[in-house]
Amino acid sequence: MESLFITFEGPEGAGKTTIINMVTEEFHKIGLNFISTREPGGIRIAENIRNIILDPENTEMDIRTEALLYAAARRQHLAEKVLPALEEGRIVLCDRFIDSSLAYQGVGRGIGIDEIYQINEFAINGLMPHLTIYFDLDPKIGLQRVHQADEREINRLDLEELDFHLKVQSGYYEIIKREPNRFKVIDASRSIEEVYEATLQAVLEKIGH
Amino acid sequence: MESLFITFEGPEGAGKTTIINMVTEEFHKIGLNFISTREPGGIRIAENIRNIILDPENTEMDIRTEALLYAAARRQHLAEKVLPALEEGRIVLCDRFIDSSLAYQGVGRGIGIDEIYQINEFAINGLMPHLTIYFDLDPKIGLQRVHQADEREINRLDLEELDFHLKVQSGYYEIIKREPNRFKVIDASRSIEEVYEATLQAVLEKIGH
Repeated sequence: MESLFITFEGPEGAGKTTIINMVTEEFHKIGLNFISTREPGGIRIAENIRNIILDPENTEMDIRTEALLYAAARRQHLAEKVLPALEEGRIVLCDRFIDSSLAYQGVGRGIGIDEIYQINEFAINGLMPHLTIYFDLDPKIGLQRVHQADEREINRLDLEELDFHLKVQSGYYEIIKREPNRFKVIDASRSIEEVYEATLQAVLEKIGH
Repeated sequence: MESLFITFEGPEGAGKTTIINMVTEEFHKIGLNFISTREPGGIRIAENIRNIILDPENTEMDIRTEALLYAAARRQHLAEKVLPALEEGRIVLCDRFIDSSLAYQGVGRGIGIDEIYQINEFAINGLMPHLTIYFDLDPKIGLQRVHQADEREINRLDLEELDFHLKVQSGYYEIIKREPNRFKVIDASRSIEEVYEATLQAVLEKIGH
């Protein structure tokens, strides 16, 4: 079987991690030769880089430094984990990849999609995913799910957060518009079971199983 | 006085650091408003990034990860130290900058000048030096100076090192060919005093002093 690189994208609260776990279980049952990962994925250098990004003392961090560090961690995870698996002919499922940077840093933080693409193109060196599942969800619903506060009134901070996530969503839409063939958009407003079925179908279809 | 960003480049053994120290002393005497720095320059986040690059345990580091980390450290040093000084109208002298990455990673390590430029363009976001002093020296002489082994016979490892530094030199020549107006090439095979005089003259001319 040919190796395949499949990534999963979307907002918080879309059920991404749950769905990936369900797909992973099914893949084990079917007996597919695959790995499931997410950056920094236990890769020591990538973990060290992430620690710098997430260190609460690093309040001075410039947004371009942050974007370069995400790209560096991505490169190392790719070099040590994703590429070797693909070279062994395995399927690689990866929770978030280049598109998260394009949407979050490029549009959410306002650096620009093309500029974030510029450094990530260097990081991935041609290894674009063969398929990217995008879990589409109204950011308002996503935030409500994350905060488990469906009934709570929305305050000023929530509105700022919502504004950020609306930008991120528009970023994803822009990327999908540019590469419609790479993406499978899945309506994540439905039940977990329905989202899972749609995801599994799209993934198995790509694998040709 | 207008702010100016001046960088210094060249191989090891060309006397770069010595010359910069002499220029710095002279600038103090003249009473110029300047800073003299080099990456990571005491900037905590940049130092943390450098520590990952230099950690001898990180033998698995991919050369593209390394290049992205150098660009990230560059960005943070720029954001916290160089840009604020320039905004205050000061002259900034910087020991190595973008051209070192272009020559060492781009050509020495073989990633390619254009690819290294791609990520560094993002890191510097338009802030190219106004003047770059290039200390030109036969890599063989540079290595002999560094090893203080003029009389020693050259062994196999020296030849590998020499080959690397010849590539680096050709990288610098390529960049200079692309941006001849930004560079002042100084023959560093001469005595320290002569190299210093030529450097000081080039720098003061640019400053208009």
